[in-house]
Amino acid sequence: MNLSDLPTPHLVLDRVKLQKNLDRMKERADALGVRLRPHMKTAKSIDVAKLALAGRPACITVSTMKEARYFAEHGLRDIVLAVGLVPQRLDEVVALLGQGVSLAVTTDMPEVAERIAEAGRRAGVTVPVMIEVDVGEHRGGVPEPVAGGQDRLLAVARGLAAGGAEVRGVLAHAGHTYGCSDREAIADIAETERSVAVDAATILREAGFGCPEVSVGSTPGALFARKLDGVTEIRPGVYMFMDLFQSGVGCCALGDIALSVLSTVMNHRPESGTAHIDAGGLALSKDRSTGSQALDLAFGLVTDVRGAPFPNLVVQSVHQEHGRLGLIDGLGTVPLEVLPVGERVRILPNHACMTAAAYERYAVVDGTEMGDRQPVVTFWDRVNGW
Amino acid sequence: MNLSDLPTPHLVLDRVKLQKNLDRMKERADALGVRLRPHMKTAKSIDVAKLALAGRPACITVSTMKEARYFAEHGLRDIVLAVGLVPQRLDEVVALLGQGVSLAVTTDMPEVAERIAEAGRRAGVTVPVMIEVDVGEHRGGVPEPVAGGQDRLLAVARGLAAGGAEVRGVLAHAGHTYGCSDREAIADIAETERSVAVDAATILREAGFGCPEVSVGSTPGALFARKLDGVTEIRPGVYMFMDLFQSGVGCCALGDIALSVLSTVMNHRPESGTAHIDAGGLALSKDRSTGSQALDLAFGLVTDVRGAPFPNLVVQSVHQEHGRLGLIDGLGTVPLEVLPVGERVRILPNHACMTAAAYERYAVVDGTEMGDRQPVVTFWDRVNGW
Repeated sequence: MNLSDLPTPHLVLDRVKLQKNLDRMKERADALGVRLRPHMKTAKSIDVAKLALAGRPACITVSTMKEARYFAEHGLRDIVLAVGLVPQRLDEVVALLGQGVSLAVTTDMPEVAERIAEAGRRAGVTVPVMIEVDVGEHRGGVPEPVAGGQDRLLAVARGLAAGGAEVRGVLAHAGHTYGCSDREAIADIAETERSVAVDAATILREAGFGCPEVSVGSTPGALFARKLDGVTEIRPGVYMFMDLFQSGVGCCALGDIALSVLSTVMNHRPESGTAHIDAGGLALSKDRSTGSQALDLAFGLVTDVRGAPFPNLVVQSVHQEHGRLGLIDGLGTVPLEVLPVGERVRILPNHACMTAAAYERYAVVDGTEMGDRQPVVTFWDRVNGW
Repeated sequence: MNLSDLPTPHLVLDRVKLQKNLDRMKERADALGVRLRPHMKTAKSIDVAKLALAGRPACITVSTMKEARYFAEHGLRDIVLAVGLVPQRLDEVVALLGQGVSLAVTTDMPEVAERIAEAGRRAGVTVPVMIEVDVGEHRGGVPEPVAGGQDRLLAVARGLAAGGAEVRGVLAHAGHTYGCSDREAIADIAETERSVAVDAATILREAGFGCPEVSVGSTPGALFARKLDGVTEIRPGVYMFMDLFQSGVGCCALGDIALSVLSTVMNHRPESGTAHIDAGGLALSKDRSTGSQALDLAFGLVTDVRGAPFPNLVVQSVHQEHGRLGLIDGLGTVPLEVLPVGERVRILPNHACMTAAAYERYAVVDGTEMGDRQPVVTFWDRVNGW
């Protein structure tokens, strides 16, 4: 089977680019002297996880309990669930712990901490907990954990202290690096993330809580942090595939993007100089994250099947199953002469995590130099849902 | 099992509202004197299809070949694929036809018509084809099919004429009704859709092509068309569930929306007057279609578990697995006192087709008056992907 045999739309993963991205982050973790605990929220695949961990401790980050179960079943049993736990999921957590899986969960709420400890006591297990601290994104995390919010930080830790749970560490996510467009700004945010997380851990340790781990994360921060002294692990995820948004942030070149959507030209509208492909809102997602960047790439950048971008050609708008091709800012008309109906193209996604989630599997290729005749070397499954 | 037992985020379908929406459209089809060929692109579920067809001819519309196979396997064998066919899918089409499934496909391109006919001849089957005509949306369809574009219209029909295919009919979709906000404007567009489609069919018939069907579609058009003389069938889809966007167009009241996402409050940020739920971009989709309407409801309207909206409360922003609650236009702070951590809420989606696609199944309830203790009467599967 080769690319021309795939039904479209189909997710395509270039293993050569993937491997390069994985190697780069491993080198970064080594240079920074921290453990790499890759976040599997983007790839959601045991095959990708194995490559990301090759030669490393088998520890991962996940975003859903379904991922936790899936990876545990596939032998990866040192897991951090980095999204704030809702109490209704506690039965699933203690069940995994009862099976010997090392699953640490995350919270920033004292009342959730108490319920975690209670569930652990009832089940006869000790639930490891990462206390989330806000380092400026204002999404999750104890607000101002080292300057005004110490009471809440300690309240979460005390909620865990009555048995049934333990303070495994402090967890931070500087998602606001995504709003940056240069490395110095990212490095500044990464330094704030580092220092707040380390200081919060110090507060907890001085108050008598163990808190062995200091976990920070985000692909931009991991790539451009100047130092990570005091941090024990990083949790980047999207670095494996990269995407247009990460390219806009400066984390990669367009040529590093390992994930694309293979699509087929469906029709031409010569009178309006456009064409439609069979990848629409469901196939690409409606993520518009490049809309806030200097180069707005609408719903994705169009390349030929080998991966060479058509100049300025993007998916201008989407319906459920249609993508309309157009040039950035209407800079001319679509080159219909090189895009006959039935031609295969590839779409580089704005946001790999969102786009990949529409698919159950990846078609894996080792490069795309052979175009339509590039062999699909294997298919890798994904674990979607919750 | 009841609503409180569901892991969140979870899709919830209120069968009472669904049935009311289905009945309304059946009455409309009867009043207009046309066949109802419901579009299953939204529900993607055999159980919903059976209710939508109860007491009617078992004919449906689909948006993907995967849907076509799924519904055919479940006994619904009179199908129109209403998205332009790409030639690479022809093997799948003739395979279904060879199994006795009546599958009509759609195109607006003469070269695709020729390839369809060629595939039909080779397989010894006659492929029924709907010729798509543009009625003003400028997405798919022969442009200006009755005023300037007759040559292309007839070229598509001639491409089918050499055996192996037949002109089953003309197909139109006035998706630009979605840009309307009052019934008269929708009715005007629906009348243009009707007259262009009927006139295109007349051109084809006068040129000697059979063209028994004239198929139009869209929920707003089906609800507000003044007459459909000459039309044989309508293909609405989202009417089954409705959503915030359809409410904004005027197609339904908020209380008619049958689909929601059950979610759980994850944390509070009292210092900024907000909170987060465990439904983010993956659980809700990043569809922002209400952003172009008079009432912009961000990423969805928040209701309590019974379905009563919290005044002005919306999902203001999303990350992959986090939804941030906020009030429309910052009109105050989130009522944290009635949204404790662990509380169940429901999110009415902007766009049901996009939101439902993230899930493999529906939890079906008969009303939600009992709140958390509302029994889940059954689960219905969905067919996602391509």
